[in-house]
Amino acid sequence: MSKETITKIEIEKAATSKINDVDFNNLSFGSIFSDHMFVCDYKNGSWQTPKIIPYQKLMLDPSARVFHYGQAVFEGMKAYKDDEDGIWLFRPDENFLRINKSSKRLAIPEFPEEYFFDGLNTLLKLDNKWIKKGFGNSLYIRPFVIATEAGVSASPSSEYKFMIICSPAQSYYGGEVRVKIADHYSRAASGGFGFAKAAGNYAGQFYPTNIAKEEGFQQVIWTDANTHEYLEEAGTMNVFFRIGDKLVTCPISDRILDGVTRKSVITMAKDLNIEVEVRPIKVAEVLEANKNGTLKEIFGSGTAAVINPIAGFGYKGDKWELPKIENSYAKKIKEAIMDIQYNKAEDKFGWRIKVD
Amino acid sequence: MSKETITKIEIEKAATSKINDVDFNNLSFGSIFSDHMFVCDYKNGSWQTPKIIPYQKLMLDPSARVFHYGQAVFEGMKAYKDDEDGIWLFRPDENFLRINKSSKRLAIPEFPEEYFFDGLNTLLKLDNKWIKKGFGNSLYIRPFVIATEAGVSASPSSEYKFMIICSPAQSYYGGEVRVKIADHYSRAASGGFGFAKAAGNYAGQFYPTNIAKEEGFQQVIWTDANTHEYLEEAGTMNVFFRIGDKLVTCPISDRILDGVTRKSVITMAKDLNIEVEVRPIKVAEVLEANKNGTLKEIFGSGTAAVINPIAGFGYKGDKWELPKIENSYAKKIKEAIMDIQYNKAEDKFGWRIKVD
Repeated sequence: MSKETITKIEIEKAATSKINDVDFNNLSFGSIFSDHMFVCDYKNGSWQTPKIIPYQKLMLDPSARVFHYGQAVFEGMKAYKDDEDGIWLFRPDENFLRINKSSKRLAIPEFPEEYFFDGLNTLLKLDNKWIKKGFGNSLYIRPFVIATEAGVSASPSSEYKFMIICSPAQSYYGGEVRVKIADHYSRAASGGFGFAKAAGNYAGQFYPTNIAKEEGFQQVIWTDANTHEYLEEAGTMNVFFRIGDKLVTCPISDRILDGVTRKSVITMAKDLNIEVEVRPIKVAEVLEANKNGTLKEIFGSGTAAVINPIAGFGYKGDKWELPKIENSYAKKIKEAIMDIQYNKAEDKFGWRIKVD
Repeated sequence: MSKETITKIEIEKAATSKINDVDFNNLSFGSIFSDHMFVCDYKNGSWQTPKIIPYQKLMLDPSARVFHYGQAVFEGMKAYKDDEDGIWLFRPDENFLRINKSSKRLAIPEFPEEYFFDGLNTLLKLDNKWIKKGFGNSLYIRPFVIATEAGVSASPSSEYKFMIICSPAQSYYGGEVRVKIADHYSRAASGGFGFAKAAGNYAGQFYPTNIAKEEGFQQVIWTDANTHEYLEEAGTMNVFFRIGDKLVTCPISDRILDGVTRKSVITMAKDLNIEVEVRPIKVAEVLEANKNGTLKEIFGSGTAAVINPIAGFGYKGDKWELPKIENSYAKKIKEAIMDIQYNKAEDKFGWRIKVD
């Protein structure tokens, strides 16, 4: 991100900042947005001049494709501020590659790399004050693309908006998280687009998650749509199981998001001399490990939460609490990753990128 | 629809009509909209006063749920005008029930029946001139619901817009349609929401359909995501196969849209003394029937096209043309249904509903 800005970006600064109206000690995730946003329109076959403008509402035709056919993808990233006011991103190259991977599967034109990084860099420097110091504080960054062409015909849009909006964040989850293992509803099909961060992968989870909430859970761990025998992901998090001293997570596939935090957890765990197995995991294996006392931890990984320990789980009407554990892998790995994110530790993997 | 309007609807009429700018003999499907639109907002736990206002752009926060999490459903209906200027709808009760079924699966609050019908009735009377006489002409009606709450948190929106927009239509497809039978990509998962008319079911089809287009097809017939052995639906149409003198279509499931035209085709075929089998159909069965000459027709059914004959199909690199046929079931059933839609024949099933 320290390379020269090569993209011509039109900048219109906000007349006044909203920052003084914000209580940074009581932030609800994703509800407050910084002063500016990045917008780049696609039309006539190419991405137009990128713009940074004051955060504002969009005007779209009611027949815009995104409203009817769900042609939309997004990313989740964070900017961190260290004690010396340095601004850092965590593996932003992965997010850039993934949004284009998602776009491709949704028939959305890919976005140019220099527009993405120059736009992000410029936006973060402009809204620098919105990134607060302090371990756990961050500016959540939401790049997204929506299909804007008017017309209710079920075909790819010829016009799009690529945008980046930013929301100051503390931590994603309050309280303990208990998960229900899905035995009927599903998130994604083989041959579908579960691997993409596509809008259409989310709304379908809300109803089954509401049912789980009524049963006392906060999230669902999805299983394969075919047999419901294999554990997949939690919809906003990839999932890890500690069985004995091994950490197990399922392989990615066309149904499962290739999580940036997931791959960082795998690398970091190995670096911390924790044995990691990436292989299919049966629900039956986890139930058996729980029964015989070898299931020690379950946790989710994702940009919003980094790592989210899971306190208990349920399956087909039964519920179990996980034991409190000392030397939790979740805690150890989370701290190690956050130390890199906040420039508090050496970054031997080259994950941390400075915004300057 | 002839019952008294009980809903208080706020009406703001358009100052001028756009109708004289429209060439009704050269309409591209879903691209031109009538003068007014119906809008009803959901907030604070209830649907607010419905409004009919001039067709206009929407202003939404860039963080609105629909852009990020695909919480959106829709319907497709048509209004027809008979020779005496009577306006008719075709089984609108089915569309009303289905949009609420779709909404429920997407965790969207259901819409009140009287708001739907009174809104639709009032809108059609106001934009009456946009419904042109003539067999095949219609006003395509697009009810839809979008999640409008601002905030990038993956949870159901607390605010929605229910809208109805209308677009004058001739016929949906120009030219011959050839379909590719899917052998890798999928449309829907068991336990998912393939049965819903949800935005998220459409964008995922665009990329595989683009590949099919490059291979000389216009549409894809989706197969089950698990084995790809069973024929399901075409994404915007249900599909029927005529094998010998029997018409075969697959049963509906949580992966398959319960098409209004599909069920009308089944009823009408039986009424025309055509034997109909609703049962799982293997790709292998269709290939074998094609080989031994008993595969006589394939057609799709849907609101936009009513019935769309399929001229040829492909599977795993092979392509076949279907023989030209006299006494086509597609033609016979389509005409019989359209005669009811346009008030040209007796309606013994009670499908046709007058707008007055």
